[in-house]
Amino acid sequence: MAELDDNRSSVQDSLQQVTALLRKHEQNLLQQHGLPRPQQVEELLHKQDLAALQKKLDQLHPADVAYILEALPLEERLVVWDLVKAERDGDILLEVSDAVRETLIAHMETRELVAATEQLDTDEIADLAPDLPREVMQDVFRSLSVGEREQLRAAMSYPEDTVGALMDFDMITVRDDITVEVVSRYLRRLDEMPDHTDQLFVVDRDGHLRGLLPVSRLLVTDLDVPVSKIMVAESVKLHPDEKAQDAALAFERYDLVSAPVVDSDGKLVGRVTVNAVVDFIREETDSEKLSAGGLREEEDLFASVWSSVKNRWTWLAVNLVTAFIASRVIGTFEGSIGKLVALAALMPIIAGIGGNSGNQTITMIVRALALGQITVGNARKLFAKEIGVSFINGLIWGGVVGVFAFLIYHSVPLGLVMTSAMLLNLLLAAVMGVTIPLLMQKLGRDPAVGSSVLITAITDSGGFFIFLGLATLFLV
Amino acid sequence: MAELDDNRSSVQDSLQQVTALLRKHEQNLLQQHGLPRPQQVEELLHKQDLAALQKKLDQLHPADVAYILEALPLEERLVVWDLVKAERDGDILLEVSDAVRETLIAHMETRELVAATEQLDTDEIADLAPDLPREVMQDVFRSLSVGEREQLRAAMSYPEDTVGALMDFDMITVRDDITVEVVSRYLRRLDEMPDHTDQLFVVDRDGHLRGLLPVSRLLVTDLDVPVSKIMVAESVKLHPDEKAQDAALAFERYDLVSAPVVDSDGKLVGRVTVNAVVDFIREETDSEKLSAGGLREEEDLFASVWSSVKNRWTWLAVNLVTAFIASRVIGTFEGSIGKLVALAALMPIIAGIGGNSGNQTITMIVRALALGQITVGNARKLFAKEIGVSFINGLIWGGVVGVFAFLIYHSVPLGLVMTSAMLLNLLLAAVMGVTIPLLMQKLGRDPAVGSSVLITAITDSGGFFIFLGLATLFLV
Repeated sequence: MAELDDNRSSVQDSLQQVTALLRKHEQNLLQQHGLPRPQQVEELLHKQDLAALQKKLDQLHPADVAYILEALPLEERLVVWDLVKAERDGDILLEVSDAVRETLIAHMETRELVAATEQLDTDEIADLAPDLPREVMQDVFRSLSVGEREQLRAAMSYPEDTVGALMDFDMITVRDDITVEVVSRYLRRLDEMPDHTDQLFVVDRDGHLRGLLPVSRLLVTDLDVPVSKIMVAESVKLHPDEKAQDAALAFERYDLVSAPVVDSDGKLVGRVTVNAVVDFIREETDSEKLSAGGLREEEDLFASVWSSVKNRWTWLAVNLVTAFIASRVIGTFEGSIGKLVALAALMPIIAGIGGNSGNQTITMIVRALALGQITVGNARKLFAKEIGVSFINGLIWGGVVGVFAFLIYHSVPLGLVMTSAMLLNLLLAAVMGVTIPLLMQKLGRDPAVGSSVLITAITDSGGFFIFLGLATLFLV
Repeated sequence: MAELDDNRSSVQDSLQQVTALLRKHEQNLLQQHGLPRPQQVEELLHKQDLAALQKKLDQLHPADVAYILEALPLEERLVVWDLVKAERDGDILLEVSDAVRETLIAHMETRELVAATEQLDTDEIADLAPDLPREVMQDVFRSLSVGEREQLRAAMSYPEDTVGALMDFDMITVRDDITVEVVSRYLRRLDEMPDHTDQLFVVDRDGHLRGLLPVSRLLVTDLDVPVSKIMVAESVKLHPDEKAQDAALAFERYDLVSAPVVDSDGKLVGRVTVNAVVDFIREETDSEKLSAGGLREEEDLFASVWSSVKNRWTWLAVNLVTAFIASRVIGTFEGSIGKLVALAALMPIIAGIGGNSGNQTITMIVRALALGQITVGNARKLFAKEIGVSFINGLIWGGVVGVFAFLIYHSVPLGLVMTSAMLLNLLLAAVMGVTIPLLMQKLGRDPAVGSSVLITAITDSGGFFIFLGLATLFLV
């Protein structure tokens, strides 16, 4: 009985949470965007009415249900998940983050998972596949047609960061020897067109891509004109092995809604649509932000303490190693610090500003590298510019910290050592800020990952060494 | 004569630069994507043939020309800019970054600027307007029709981060009492349809939005069906004053290609298309990255040293203030450091790891806030989780640094002080890492800006205070 009460109060808790989220969500999106907003749902929810909550969930877009699931603690999340209609499970699993998806899948039975997955397109099944238990994938595979199995195998064979992973197979293809009228009649026989169909793909008898037929041209062209006359023969073509990053760049530059994917023989194998590209861009910048913040990967907001600890482990360990090195650099100069304790108070200033300046340079260079703007010809110019900026900043801010040191410790030589150390550390920051990303690029590594930690380590240890070294030479 | 030679060698330099860039660019995009790639252009460029370069530039997409201009140092950039056909100037100015746009506009005469601007749509003119000289805008304004002036005035009246600034006016509107056949005949009389027309907008006599007519439905529906039967009545509607960020979220969630913008009376005033949203997302994440790296704004890769110095000033100054504070915290404990110099070498470890851990927490929380996932109900749970993570990390990494201190300085009490200080600083980092972004949000500020600097300042000064304070109490 106690257990039952517990359960009931947990359901009540969860309903209150969901009420709050739904209200917030409606303020955010639904009201503003005029999406359907049934009357009196809030009151129903206040009454802890599971049936009403279920009804409300049924009316929401899968992406909105996903949003609510993401924001709920595990227990409440599973209560809501059980209320979602089974036939929507697949679409919602596609929308949630990897971390939350794992928690939902762990809660489902094999039978439910198979049913949810079977309703998806093959390219969507491929997206879910890595998170699904082996026996589920085997059951799903058996339920597919031969052609679908082929598609699924193809989609699963491409690494996550390639065009192949973004690709879907929902294309309408036509031949180039028919007229606009025939195409129009053909389309009118369809029940519906695939999402994001801004163009039809013109192929020959063997499936080689001959051109693109934008829907907008189809609509404004006279009915008796042949497709071959209005199709666009020259266009962006993607290849399944190409980097997804490059495809995203092409979509951004040329404002595409969809683009064909062809194999090495020029055969049409799929298409990429702008919604897949937008999701890719968001995920990519998201994971850059997370790694810049020192997190290994996306973290379920309500992950267990233990899995959070593991997610943060890597960067803390790296940081600890660089901190130990810096500590040993200072340790070498303990004799000088013992004689002039002011050094201990001043040294973090040199290290800190050096790190700040180095990160500014590295941000510039990493960005320019990502945009492909750095060539052998202009690298030297960039180098000269960064040295110039650091020189001026070194004089200005070095002067400021020199005056600061003088005002507090009344020693002109100490002030001069501060100024020189600042200037030298900023120059070090500029040189390494340009060199590190260029070198990483040359070694085939992503300059965006780890550059910042590396430059901070160098300007820390380097700053301590320069400042304490100069002080040892000239002051003690 | 010497001057002429100088000029000639500069043009040669520039041509070599452009050759390198074009080759690189073609490797990146053109070859892979099968865009037209004229034969023997490279050889022509090697021969320093301006006419051939011009021809090549003419064949490139405006976004590609913009890419090349971005990557060239100022002098070479202007040589290439002069080769671009005047009628393409407007489109290219729209594609380059703000910083590079300024350099190009400064180089153009009023007459040229007016000609370039006049060829653009009103929403595009509004985008350029802030960078154009006043007299240019006056001339352009005079050349517009009354309706266009109204559009331009409307487009310019919205702040940069609102839906109004993303909006364009290229909509096809239809009435709901006509049939699919009438719509089809109407469309066939057009020369072309606006880019990104995935749907027509159904309006009543007074211009109120009644629904949306997706082109894909138009194409699959029988000709005698009336528009009212197949239009989508309930849909996402944007408002011009709404945050662009919210519109971007709606496009991502609901996979939109275009969305109507209506005023408070429900009248259709414009539309937003996915390409504007993609550009917005890219610019936004770009500026977040820049500010995370300590840069005030996007910097022309080849900006003068002086303007770069100014761009980096703000964050260096902020950092200097926090460094001075940390320095004074250490200064308070100079007596203790004088007695036990090891403290100076060990204190940066406590501060550094605290900053790292605090930034991890803040990255999580800022992300969750941006996604709207934090409510009053779950904030307490989050708090408890972060404290838990820091407690475990404090024990583990505190233990590691304690052993490190013991191994080097052979003092158990010193090791214990290290461990306790680490644990306390990580707890401080967790508490402030959750509190700072929530507080900023409450105060109506963007939690993404400045949170990281603030937490680092707190864990630095706090870490020094905790460690040196404990050491003073128990060791000296």
